[in-house]
Amino acid sequence: MIAAAEPHHDGSPLHVSQQAPTLGSVVSVRVRVPRAARVTGVHVRTTPDGEQFFSDARVVHEDDTETWWQAEITCHNPVTNYRFLLDAAGDHEASGEEDPIRRPAAYRWLNGAGLHARDVPDAADFRLVAHPAPPAWATGAVVYQVFPDRFARDVAAEPDGDPGGPRTDLPGWATPAGWDDPLDTGKDRGPAQVYGGTLDGVREHLDHLVDLGVTVLYLTPVFPARSNHRYDATSFDRVDPLLGGDEALVRLQEAAHERGLLVMGDITTNHTGDEHEWFLAARADPQGPAGDWYVRDPDHPGDWVRWLGVESLPKLDHANPAVRSALTDGPDSVVERWLGRGHGLDAWRVDVANMTGRYRDVDLAHQVARETRAAVDRATGGTGLVVAEHTHDHSADVTGDGWHGVMNYSGFTRPAWTWLRAPGFAPKFLGSPLRVPRLGADLVVETIREFSAIVPWRSLVHSMTLVGSHDTTRVRTLVGDDPEQVRVAAALLLTSPGIPMITYGDEVGMPGDFGEDGRRPMPWADRGVPGGRWDEDLLDTYRELIHLRRSSPALTDGGIRWLHAHDDAMVFLREHPDETVLVHVARAAHDAIPLELVDLPGAADARRLAGDGVRPEGERLLVHAEAPGYDVWSWPTRAPAWEPVPEDYRGGW
Amino acid sequence: MIAAAEPHHDGSPLHVSQQAPTLGSVVSVRVRVPRAARVTGVHVRTTPDGEQFFSDARVVHEDDTETWWQAEITCHNPVTNYRFLLDAAGDHEASGEEDPIRRPAAYRWLNGAGLHARDVPDAADFRLVAHPAPPAWATGAVVYQVFPDRFARDVAAEPDGDPGGPRTDLPGWATPAGWDDPLDTGKDRGPAQVYGGTLDGVREHLDHLVDLGVTVLYLTPVFPARSNHRYDATSFDRVDPLLGGDEALVRLQEAAHERGLLVMGDITTNHTGDEHEWFLAARADPQGPAGDWYVRDPDHPGDWVRWLGVESLPKLDHANPAVRSALTDGPDSVVERWLGRGHGLDAWRVDVANMTGRYRDVDLAHQVARETRAAVDRATGGTGLVVAEHTHDHSADVTGDGWHGVMNYSGFTRPAWTWLRAPGFAPKFLGSPLRVPRLGADLVVETIREFSAIVPWRSLVHSMTLVGSHDTTRVRTLVGDDPEQVRVAAALLLTSPGIPMITYGDEVGMPGDFGEDGRRPMPWADRGVPGGRWDEDLLDTYRELIHLRRSSPALTDGGIRWLHAHDDAMVFLREHPDETVLVHVARAAHDAIPLELVDLPGAADARRLAGDGVRPEGERLLVHAEAPGYDVWSWPTRAPAWEPVPEDYRGGW
Repeated sequence: MIAAAEPHHDGSPLHVSQQAPTLGSVVSVRVRVPRAARVTGVHVRTTPDGEQFFSDARVVHEDDTETWWQAEITCHNPVTNYRFLLDAAGDHEASGEEDPIRRPAAYRWLNGAGLHARDVPDAADFRLVAHPAPPAWATGAVVYQVFPDRFARDVAAEPDGDPGGPRTDLPGWATPAGWDDPLDTGKDRGPAQVYGGTLDGVREHLDHLVDLGVTVLYLTPVFPARSNHRYDATSFDRVDPLLGGDEALVRLQEAAHERGLLVMGDITTNHTGDEHEWFLAARADPQGPAGDWYVRDPDHPGDWVRWLGVESLPKLDHANPAVRSALTDGPDSVVERWLGRGHGLDAWRVDVANMTGRYRDVDLAHQVARETRAAVDRATGGTGLVVAEHTHDHSADVTGDGWHGVMNYSGFTRPAWTWLRAPGFAPKFLGSPLRVPRLGADLVVETIREFSAIVPWRSLVHSMTLVGSHDTTRVRTLVGDDPEQVRVAAALLLTSPGIPMITYGDEVGMPGDFGEDGRRPMPWADRGVPGGRWDEDLLDTYRELIHLRRSSPALTDGGIRWLHAHDDAMVFLREHPDETVLVHVARAAHDAIPLELVDLPGAADARRLAGDGVRPEGERLLVHAEAPGYDVWSWPTRAPAWEPVPEDYRGGW
Repeated sequence: MIAAAEPHHDGSPLHVSQQAPTLGSVVSVRVRVPRAARVTGVHVRTTPDGEQFFSDARVVHEDDTETWWQAEITCHNPVTNYRFLLDAAGDHEASGEEDPIRRPAAYRWLNGAGLHARDVPDAADFRLVAHPAPPAWATGAVVYQVFPDRFARDVAAEPDGDPGGPRTDLPGWATPAGWDDPLDTGKDRGPAQVYGGTLDGVREHLDHLVDLGVTVLYLTPVFPARSNHRYDATSFDRVDPLLGGDEALVRLQEAAHERGLLVMGDITTNHTGDEHEWFLAARADPQGPAGDWYVRDPDHPGDWVRWLGVESLPKLDHANPAVRSALTDGPDSVVERWLGRGHGLDAWRVDVANMTGRYRDVDLAHQVARETRAAVDRATGGTGLVVAEHTHDHSADVTGDGWHGVMNYSGFTRPAWTWLRAPGFAPKFLGSPLRVPRLGADLVVETIREFSAIVPWRSLVHSMTLVGSHDTTRVRTLVGDDPEQVRVAAALLLTSPGIPMITYGDEVGMPGDFGEDGRRPMPWADRGVPGGRWDEDLLDTYRELIHLRRSSPALTDGGIRWLHAHDDAMVFLREHPDETVLVHVARAAHDAIPLELVDLPGAADARRLAGDGVRPEGERLLVHAEAPGYDVWSWPTRAPAWEPVPEDYRGGW
């Protein structure tokens, strides 16, 4: 249970005056303190050049609910961390000291993880980032992930009503499958099974994406490879002819852009396939310079290190400038050449980013991230996005000048799974069961809050949130026998900060026990077929939630303030200068939660956007649930204007 | 309150098989799980090259108290973080899954901050460090800090009975003071007041240090300067003639070494005085290369940045290789030339290390730390120690290849202050009052635990612990009217992990409200004078505690396991393969705390080393206090032998 009466700050526009400061910028920040909190003074602590610096906040607004305090922060360093010190009623008086500043204080620290009555480390401090900002389009983006082999064949050749037989034009490594054939998820056989989807097939189904309301098409790798997932590229120079080749990608990109959709590619910077042109060269002359493109195996002279020991995936050596140059340096580099300039990709997702450039005593991960980001910026004129795969604590790797964000498995997916997974079910990553307990919302929200707090707000909101991917259990399978909980997952996903990513098929209820098992062909033939593999009701839910998100400044660009988290219910606010949204998600029926209107200025004018589990009753909103579900309410935000920076303001040194 | 029934691990020799692993070392680690904890399996998680890797622990010993689990970890990277996953009774059964590994698990994470029922970030993971180890002498060291101007004049000239009048040989900036003259703590006048202590004076009083039992003499700066504190050096090439010059330092070092004492110097790498030779050169030719030795002020062309804006302290520019070279590169560099080789200093304390090399968008702090450490290693053949000043969260700056440790203000001093400061008293740093609440032991211990957990064990135990310094309020003043609490502070200091540092005079009860006010001349004349400024009883306490620490393997090199922390009492174990020590500190009278002997294997054979607040009663130890005080008990540790690494063990990739 988190008190609505807790002082609040987050990195969103309602509380921070500038979202894209530069070095030296003076940024105003505001803390809202409920009247009941007995706070007598507010100070902000920064650590310019590594030394603590305190400045005072001033009251800029008071009403029946709360007091707004404003302070200024100088972006003295590229990343400026800050936290608030709230003077509390304490032993001031006992000191007998008349000068308030010399009195010993009881206090609370306020950082991104909440209020603390004791000293806490700096990890969860708020942060301002003075590096160049991510592209504006990323705010409000909704990503749709497509696994090209499984989304659609060319309609021209095989209309959706025609399931299509096995393709006859496949190379030797592939096992052809008809579109309705069962998956073969055997360890080696799974990746060899080719259903034959193409980029033209994707292009011909873009109306599905437009109808759903997503804004970004994310394609898992399209380079030639020797598997259906293509994370074992044999070249970065061309699009796999099995997918239609370079021309099909251009056609797809153009068609997407015509519809207002952007396109995100998928690049593997950590490794290539062992049939990649670069690795063939290495093997042809192991002692020559080509052999230095991959990390040499210190334990096996003449051989190279592989990703997690998988023979077919040799690891690139970023300590070799030639490798970094080939990947990120100049218009012909892999990262740059496929991007931007009006017709290329608009973003990259970076596979295995967490391991890229890391091996034993070499750690170039941040350098690779910075160089990749710089290449993206160059190729797109600063309008590109780069998001890194990362499956555990990513805070050390999202420091502001590299990846814009990550796939937020640790701070969103896993907590969501711990709340929504069916009792007795273990979610899987690839084929491996994960240890994911089933927890109440209090612990789940603590987890989300803490992982959110340890990265800059900007990195949080530019990280992809997801409840499943091509690598994991599908959300439909995760929740078990109660399909209503898929809606709850979708609601949590689409009302949370971040860039929501929907894996193709989730929106129609595609099941999948583990990574390979979830990579099923999209069941176009079942559209409109009652009881088939295409859940039209669920699709309606996704469509409505995506529309809700895209039309709401609070849901796309608001802060987050937790009001309640216990067992089966979560209630939170998304707050933006133009709008406040209240979200309630329930994984099961629960007793009514009373929210006092006095704590929610403006809520008396609230309007319902979704659900029927909230009702006004006198001076309260009662939030309840008879079954799994969600509610969304909206009202105009009541906030004071920003006060100008005081003339006598000076920051640190 | 912390349960004794909590599973435990820390980085100490009882739980980690190697304290100085190298890259690739396979290290065994052990977790002890109380039988009541219902743990069914233990796994260790590392993140080699940035990817999660799990391996299983095995039971190596079981007794009535606990189960010992052992696992192996490969030091795949220079710093290997690890945590434990404890399978808990949960919803295994509901899954119907027969293969245990495929069952969904309830679990607890165990990291340095304790047990967690939910996912937590990696910051508090345990860590193995494969960088070269600190010198062996640092384990068990007790440091005695001397402020040379205030410790002692030459006895030959002025016997201790003779208070000594103002010196007549001082330069123009100095205000001469007689040894018994009152301090003048005015802002500018304070640092100019020179009492005239010398290095020969220190040498002539080394028997006091030997008698006290300390092992390291730490001298605040001895380079010439224009203040009594000498943090505004005018040269790094010679010892201040006012202190006796180079020869006096050599005499002091030799005398110290003869007595088995080591000597730590104090170097300011962040700035110099504005009369330093280097800065005079810069001012003489601001546009020339000499001007590049200091950070140019971007806002004031032709001028340079100063430490916290203090005009007399221009900031060195470590982006200039000439500066780094002069400080750390080669036998003639400042850091190297004063160290080692049998007659020099044995260690450096680095002033303002937290800011060194940091300014706006430049952050070379880690590079400076690494280069300083390398210089220390070269000059001493790896037997030198380098400890950095840092007053807030230092975890990002003690990563294993730079500073061996820090002055642990955030993880020890401030928590100790929050427990021991008198109600109504605000401790000061330099002249500024600090916000330090008065808290119960539960929050205090949480703070100590969390700040301890976020640095490698090695960095923790090589950081200096202190309850005050020349920069702060003296502990005697901190505790207010109850001098017994100074003993409690001393006991906490001398029984905790780390390198205890005692500021000259603390051991005889020297008071001091703030930094300058605590820099009083050592009251040698009051030795043996009842009611004087020399508290012989307190000195006995310090002597006993230092002896206790030095003679106890558990207190010098043991782990730490908290048993109880509430309001006025703390109880913890220091555990070493050879000995277990139980420590009880009480800031006030409190009710008896019962500790079950079954939780403390071997405690039935305990012997009392200090205090009378613990008594055996049947199957329990009763821990109580009638007044502020401390207790120390010791017994032989009961621990199984290390199991060999299994033949089929393999680490990550």
